[in-house]
Amino acid sequence: MFVVPLLAALLLANEAPAEEGMWLPNAIPAGALKEKYGLQPTPALLEHLQKSAVRFSTGGSGSLVSARGLVMTNHHVGSDMLGKLSTPERDLLKTGFHARSLGDELPCPDLELDILWEIEDVTARVTAASQDAGDLAAAGAARRKAINAIKDESNQRTGLTSEVVTLYQGGRYHLYRYRTYRDVRLVFAPEAAIAFFGGDADNFEFPRFDLDCCFFRIYEDGKPLEPQHHLAWDADGVEERELVFTWGHPGSTNRLFTADHVAYLRDFEEPANLRRLWRSEVKLATFMGRGAENARIAREDYLGAQNGRKSTQGLLDALQDPALLAMKRADERELLATLEGKPEAKEFEEGRRMIAASLELARRIGGDYMMLERRFRAGDLASFARIALRMRAESGKPSAERLPEYGDAARASLEAQLYSPAPIYPEYEIERLTAWLSGLCEGRGGDDLLVKQLLAGKGPRARATELVRGTRLADVDARRKADPSDPMIAFVAAFDADARAARLAWEDGVDTRQRDGYAKVAAARFAAFGDSVYPDATFTLRMSYGTVKGWTTAEGEDVPAFTTIAGTFDRAAARAGERDFELPKSWLDAKDRLAGATPFNFVSTNDIIGGNSGSPVVDADGEVVGLIFDGNLDSLAGDVVFDITRNRAVSVDARGMLEALRTVYKADGLVNEMLAPANARK
Amino acid sequence: MFVVPLLAALLLANEAPAEEGMWLPNAIPAGALKEKYGLQPTPALLEHLQKSAVRFSTGGSGSLVSARGLVMTNHHVGSDMLGKLSTPERDLLKTGFHARSLGDELPCPDLELDILWEIEDVTARVTAASQDAGDLAAAGAARRKAINAIKDESNQRTGLTSEVVTLYQGGRYHLYRYRTYRDVRLVFAPEAAIAFFGGDADNFEFPRFDLDCCFFRIYEDGKPLEPQHHLAWDADGVEERELVFTWGHPGSTNRLFTADHVAYLRDFEEPANLRRLWRSEVKLATFMGRGAENARIAREDYLGAQNGRKSTQGLLDALQDPALLAMKRADERELLATLEGKPEAKEFEEGRRMIAASLELARRIGGDYMMLERRFRAGDLASFARIALRMRAESGKPSAERLPEYGDAARASLEAQLYSPAPIYPEYEIERLTAWLSGLCEGRGGDDLLVKQLLAGKGPRARATELVRGTRLADVDARRKADPSDPMIAFVAAFDADARAARLAWEDGVDTRQRDGYAKVAAARFAAFGDSVYPDATFTLRMSYGTVKGWTTAEGEDVPAFTTIAGTFDRAAARAGERDFELPKSWLDAKDRLAGATPFNFVSTNDIIGGNSGSPVVDADGEVVGLIFDGNLDSLAGDVVFDITRNRAVSVDARGMLEALRTVYKADGLVNEMLAPANARK
Repeated sequence: MFVVPLLAALLLANEAPAEEGMWLPNAIPAGALKEKYGLQPTPALLEHLQKSAVRFSTGGSGSLVSARGLVMTNHHVGSDMLGKLSTPERDLLKTGFHARSLGDELPCPDLELDILWEIEDVTARVTAASQDAGDLAAAGAARRKAINAIKDESNQRTGLTSEVVTLYQGGRYHLYRYRTYRDVRLVFAPEAAIAFFGGDADNFEFPRFDLDCCFFRIYEDGKPLEPQHHLAWDADGVEERELVFTWGHPGSTNRLFTADHVAYLRDFEEPANLRRLWRSEVKLATFMGRGAENARIAREDYLGAQNGRKSTQGLLDALQDPALLAMKRADERELLATLEGKPEAKEFEEGRRMIAASLELARRIGGDYMMLERRFRAGDLASFARIALRMRAESGKPSAERLPEYGDAARASLEAQLYSPAPIYPEYEIERLTAWLSGLCEGRGGDDLLVKQLLAGKGPRARATELVRGTRLADVDARRKADPSDPMIAFVAAFDADARAARLAWEDGVDTRQRDGYAKVAAARFAAFGDSVYPDATFTLRMSYGTVKGWTTAEGEDVPAFTTIAGTFDRAAARAGERDFELPKSWLDAKDRLAGATPFNFVSTNDIIGGNSGSPVVDADGEVVGLIFDGNLDSLAGDVVFDITRNRAVSVDARGMLEALRTVYKADGLVNEMLAPANARK
Repeated sequence: MFVVPLLAALLLANEAPAEEGMWLPNAIPAGALKEKYGLQPTPALLEHLQKSAVRFSTGGSGSLVSARGLVMTNHHVGSDMLGKLSTPERDLLKTGFHARSLGDELPCPDLELDILWEIEDVTARVTAASQDAGDLAAAGAARRKAINAIKDESNQRTGLTSEVVTLYQGGRYHLYRYRTYRDVRLVFAPEAAIAFFGGDADNFEFPRFDLDCCFFRIYEDGKPLEPQHHLAWDADGVEERELVFTWGHPGSTNRLFTADHVAYLRDFEEPANLRRLWRSEVKLATFMGRGAENARIAREDYLGAQNGRKSTQGLLDALQDPALLAMKRADERELLATLEGKPEAKEFEEGRRMIAASLELARRIGGDYMMLERRFRAGDLASFARIALRMRAESGKPSAERLPEYGDAARASLEAQLYSPAPIYPEYEIERLTAWLSGLCEGRGGDDLLVKQLLAGKGPRARATELVRGTRLADVDARRKADPSDPMIAFVAAFDADARAARLAWEDGVDTRQRDGYAKVAAARFAAFGDSVYPDATFTLRMSYGTVKGWTTAEGEDVPAFTTIAGTFDRAAARAGERDFELPKSWLDAKDRLAGATPFNFVSTNDIIGGNSGSPVVDADGEVVGLIFDGNLDSLAGDVVFDITRNRAVSVDARGMLEALRTVYKADGLVNEMLAPANARK
């Protein structure tokens, strides 16, 4: 669990080895693909893959896999919806779900799916806006305003969801336009027991045996979407050493970070994240221990906390290996040596200094910013209250001057969130608001004026109980009304100015410095290494390529590339009686009918990270051969470095998925839809 | 779980209500007992109760309950030994244990039991030693030396284990002499499933249904001890509203703390404790999740972390209620008003200032001190290495100048610890050493010189693995040899100077200021309220009295005083299928034979705290009617305040215990030994 990768073999971004990289869809490494593999993907194929890829608003990836709008993703990407669609009587995470006709499909309360349609480079316009600003605050404001204006204009002109993406941590700005779908319905999900077989113990490990898949359908005008593009299946699957591609949405990496910034992750940010996750994991576990219904309600958040904790711990393990920082520092020395005598060397030094200054400030003001604003997590009712409050306040301003999430371009998303019909559980609301209040008191101390004001003379639990019992925001209509005298709205209003101030201090002092600093750093890297530098992940569409291949662990053990369906039953037998290793009845019943030798999960060298969950794995023809659902432990260092010797992506094999759908779930309709001849690309 | 007691009805120490107080055995509240209950315990009865009480070196209480040295305590006090006596093939926590003859009793590897024999007031000698010291450091050194000398002299003269106890946080010093026993053998323990039925969810809750008992036997010269005193049983038990007494060893309370000091607990110390416990709980759970044997090895520590987390959270909940601090501050104003014009008022102010200064410093230097010295927890091998290293270093100094735990008076205890034959598990050692190294890096940052030195160029896990695989200290003989070139000894030697410096800085800067400050505060309290002030708990013998009585919760629910054996089966049925609610087979088999109406657990108003676990509950005749094993949630504020309206002690009822021993476990021999007529006191 706490295994640390040996870092000797690591290579950094500026000397990207084969198979490293999360490449922009409009800047794939054509030279490398041609030279190494003799591949020259046509523009048509690239567009096909781009427009078959789907982004989930819950933070994952997916792909269109039928001519009738069927979307494949991971169970753990869909599980948020599975939870929201469950009731004490209908626990979809426990039982799974299978709509045998369109009419049985379940509308999701607040899910949005995006398909990337167009990209436009807006770097010049964004940087010009802030260039002549007098100070950091003016520069930050000018840049935010320019970005908002670009989005609004694009949105108004095209009707497409428009986002400005910051690439290279500030080196480039691209405008992305998406087709967005909000009528999305649940089609199929297996039981959590097989989707997440092995639980936290096996998470980020391999060999694995998980049917981590789930299917939704996009509707348009009340009918299944007939998409312009969707992926065909290669039912023959992949072999060891075969080249495979992922098209998905890696969430965030920090590989271009300066050494100082990586040290900040190691010494400050990741330890703080872990402390938050440890706290949250224990608090959720104790809430769940109070009864079966509590356990059902909080399970999704609990699994999320466990997942975050294990991946953050893996990253911290890598960061705490002194070899990593030594390498980052050597890398910077090398970059400077390469640029010796050029103006970019000075630019780099200047950028590095600006970034270091931003980190000094971040350490001081980060706590408030996270607690009050960026990670404000005090339950759903408190979140609704904040959105309702700010929606009213921001509506009075021109769109370009609003907080970006309240701009015209984001209105539909925001409303989908605020008016979600997903169920609200008062006890869980009390629990989370209590935890937030208690955390505020832990952080600022009980004599802090804001703490005193927010507790209003009561202990955190008594205060949270009073607020949750008093608010009417569990009712969607009350959220539309947004009565300022509602106790929860009054509560969040009491510190809204503090939260906004903390945000502004961060955006001006930290973000602006970092963007300007990284613009200089990126310019230096481009000068030294040309366009072989890929940008850090930004939860936007990226292509990665790699080969299906096992690895040898730091302890010298060989891990094979594939597992089989039969292996699943062996693993269950070996861990009999332990939690998370009990197969669902459907699988036990189907055991004799399943083709045991069918490949179930496999690993490949693709460079992925959290957010890639649910990405399709396609072969050189662009046909589905697998479904990304995890990385191995060694991949957790991937936030800052990529180690081809041990970093592996973990996928559900298409063959295992089809075998399970047919044999365990009798989902022949679904399989036939996906394998339909009409579904062939060519 | 996070319920906060309403504090309106709380009364503080200086106005101690009926039934509050953990009274010194040589200063029981005779006046109150006589006045309110017409009771006048004879000196003989008090001596009998004192010398029947037993202190466990594992941090709990117990009592002699037969003429042949049988000692009763809680299962969760004995469970550390149960773990050490277990193997992969013999899991005593799972199966329980029952020696049907003396020959079957299992010798404990490193348990010490103390019986308090004599008390002497040494306040004058201790305070005189430091009175004329020039500065804090000199005063601290003089006091430590005087205390060491007093212990050594007493130990040499009497042969009894001698300790100097600091009472009233520095107001008084008493010399305690104990008879110590190290040949202790396990006689009986039920299965953990019934001893801790309900697990973390029901811990600190009521109604409860736990057979949290366990029996050991003291041996002397290879034969069962025939003690001078032991408790008789009152097999008729207690009734609601009956007066009961506990004689046990409450670990620590902070009720005499100044308001500033309580605010320090709220804003600094308890949040830091919780962060440590959350971290530890999650790390232990993930280690245990890797396999059944891991789960067995770490279970005790895991339960300890959960217990600590739940009690610390309960305390923090109380502290974060603004009413508590408001009351503490009002209390100080009242004290000052009472003392107006007297010199003690000034003394109090001065003491309060010294304490505030100590807290300023504690915030700054506490992290290092806890990590490197006071809570140095890096696995058993690292602990052995430190003891072996320091034993050698300290032996060269006069006993009075050594670190107190290395003085002559403590030598036997220290050797019992160092040469313990308890099993060592390398994987668990690696896990704990990794966690410690990683924590050091979290706290000090990866560029810290000590961190770099201790990691020696490797990541925490790689470094821990190398040290654990390299050391020979798993072997007891290697611990005797204490070879300085042993890698683990060399490792702890590398930061021994830092650890000692951190300790000295704390002892001189924080402890000395606090002792001097609290001496002044205590003098003021004595001046205002006379001897009605009891000292804070110090893990020494205390008497508490109270009545068997349910309570009404903050939500208005009435909780009855007793549960029954039949209720146990009802609770198991209500939580069927959930972890920690599965009754052991022995109970399921005995269900029809058990007398369901037998009282099983009960609550009383006795003022107890952690460390009291295993205390006998006796009636006015001094006969056993129960066995303390817990407090309710409202009792968790007991660290700083006692709230008679809701604070309850939780006991196993003697009748339930006897019924289970006879009917479930067929332990008639044990029952007969305890109920033997020879066992009657009078």
